[in-house]
Amino acid sequence: MAEGARAERLAALVAEQELDSLIVGDLVRPGDSSAEATAGLRWLTGFGGTSGLALVGPSVRLFLTDFRYVERAEREVDSGFERRTVEQRLVPELAKALSGRVGYDDSQTSVRALRQLTEALPDGAELVPAAGLVERLRRSKDAGEQRAIAAAASLADDVYRWVLDRGLRGRREREVARAAEARIRELGAEPSFPVIVAAGPNGALPHAEPSEREIGAGELVVFDMGATLDGYCSDCTRTFATGTLDDEAAEVYELVRGAQSAALERIAPGLSGRDADSAAREPIAAAGHGDHFGHGLGHGVGIEVHEAPRLSQRSDDVLAEGDVVTVEPGVYVPGRLGVRIEDLVVVTADGTRNLSSLPKELTEVD
Amino acid sequence: MAEGARAERLAALVAEQELDSLIVGDLVRPGDSSAEATAGLRWLTGFGGTSGLALVGPSVRLFLTDFRYVERAEREVDSGFERRTVEQRLVPELAKALSGRVGYDDSQTSVRALRQLTEALPDGAELVPAAGLVERLRRSKDAGEQRAIAAAASLADDVYRWVLDRGLRGRREREVARAAEARIRELGAEPSFPVIVAAGPNGALPHAEPSEREIGAGELVVFDMGATLDGYCSDCTRTFATGTLDDEAAEVYELVRGAQSAALERIAPGLSGRDADSAAREPIAAAGHGDHFGHGLGHGVGIEVHEAPRLSQRSDDVLAEGDVVTVEPGVYVPGRLGVRIEDLVVVTADGTRNLSSLPKELTEVD
Repeated sequence: MAEGARAERLAALVAEQELDSLIVGDLVRPGDSSAEATAGLRWLTGFGGTSGLALVGPSVRLFLTDFRYVERAEREVDSGFERRTVEQRLVPELAKALSGRVGYDDSQTSVRALRQLTEALPDGAELVPAAGLVERLRRSKDAGEQRAIAAAASLADDVYRWVLDRGLRGRREREVARAAEARIRELGAEPSFPVIVAAGPNGALPHAEPSEREIGAGELVVFDMGATLDGYCSDCTRTFATGTLDDEAAEVYELVRGAQSAALERIAPGLSGRDADSAAREPIAAAGHGDHFGHGLGHGVGIEVHEAPRLSQRSDDVLAEGDVVTVEPGVYVPGRLGVRIEDLVVVTADGTRNLSSLPKELTEVD
Repeated sequence: MAEGARAERLAALVAEQELDSLIVGDLVRPGDSSAEATAGLRWLTGFGGTSGLALVGPSVRLFLTDFRYVERAEREVDSGFERRTVEQRLVPELAKALSGRVGYDDSQTSVRALRQLTEALPDGAELVPAAGLVERLRRSKDAGEQRAIAAAASLADDVYRWVLDRGLRGRREREVARAAEARIRELGAEPSFPVIVAAGPNGALPHAEPSEREIGAGELVVFDMGATLDGYCSDCTRTFATGTLDDEAAEVYELVRGAQSAALERIAPGLSGRDADSAAREPIAAAGHGDHFGHGLGHGVGIEVHEAPRLSQRSDDVLAEGDVVTVEPGVYVPGRLGVRIEDLVVVTADGTRNLSSLPKELTEVD
């Protein structure tokens, strides 16, 4: 879908909320934004720079940037937007352009920016908190977005195969992770998050950073990696075995594999994020590992590696065609081992299309 | 200086502002913070994770994190802090611990987080906007921080030499930039920002991303690069010549070199950021290039690559011993060329100590 059609859909949603317009962009560090903070603006306008704000409503399509990004905005921003360059600061200039009921995302607007907007607000204009509207539309990935995510996933799968060809046993977790990141970059992408390589007991740590520990023989190795390519992310986890496992490790592996498979079979439009999570959680709990699965089943992936919807016991989301989500149950036995198996899938009319090409049978590597 | 001493200094500053305590940390994406958003928390407590908040005042040193970071907090957070793990969300838990007049940074607090704090605020507690207190203390770098920044600068200088050994002419800007970034990572650091390589007319673009253009002969190449090592950044620019320059390019180069040298000679404790900027700006303006120097002279560097103080015509900062700042005048002639020369210096009792080891005489490279 072209960005212009996105602005149309957003304008309709804005009207539905009884707003005249919505501010889109980073109102915490406007002018020096992180990639995460500008994901919505990028989706809406195509603009990939670090300094921009947009205003969208049934009768307005305005894009503001500063002098550093004039050429980039000309090249990237959807032509349906009126493009304006501001001399000084974005926020006061944006304020001048506001009228009627103007929505802003209160989770992405600093207290200071709201005060600056309020101070420069024209008579008759009103600022209304309105979070999550762009995020709601970003959930459903169009065909081009699905292709971009699939390409990122395919690249990461290639890196998995490249890594495994080089073996794991006797290498340090950190060295393996850094090599995988370097390989992602060699192939023209970026890691969508720092690669996780956690072997043996480290696999049980909830937020393991790769350590200097040498990967031993007969261990499980949790390997979590994604690539960002052309602005879209992938996310995939596999757990490998460095030789023959003991019974506990082999059983936990098969338990997680079965739970992941059960969730994949259930996922389809109309299933709640909570029920998807339950589909994997119930067999794990029945095996006595309920306390060892301390995170949700999955999350949406797109411009950001974590976005809507959420698949967990705390989610109110209901899955719909076009969602792209991870399915990643895990069991972490403190001091002993961890297993997580994660696929990235598109929710289709009749179930899912799996973007992860790697096998899930226990894979022994050197 | 140990983190404990930093908390002491911050507590004193908090008392000076007639506050009982100050909230430190990311109140926009608490629980999923970027490195930029947690720079102050890292400086204060030593904590390098993405989910933490601190409360500091004359009679309080409290650090909150979630279950994912319990072990990391034990390892990293200064022992003067009471460390607490929250079950669910950081912000409501923090609110319960507040009393008296509590400062928060309104530029780093979302409207939503302020509302959540307010809703859970105990009787008698009051929230007061108080921005920039940690940033003010972070300006002055202690001996350990200066060593860390010098080490990052030295590593980046090594990468400069490595790049130049491989030549520039006939290579694409982007390929050279990516190779430099890969080399920084090979040496165990991270680029502190995406490397800039901008040759010929591209050197005049205000925010040049490395392009697919081949670097020609007899061109000026603006090369801006820094490394982040052990949590501290460096920043350095050199402009190289790929063979003999025409007269205009050679003259602009010498103009910028003289302007940079003039600023370096002036910088010392007590000089204003404005006057430092003027020291470089005046000779450039006198040569008729005043309109071609469209940014400030420099900025502080530390945990962040851009921090206090600022050296520019719009700055109210006055330089002090312990500041670490860039000195980077530039001249950009649209459609023709750009030159920028940037050193990173420590402000000392009697002037500066230069952390950049690379020569500034015009360097011809293949």
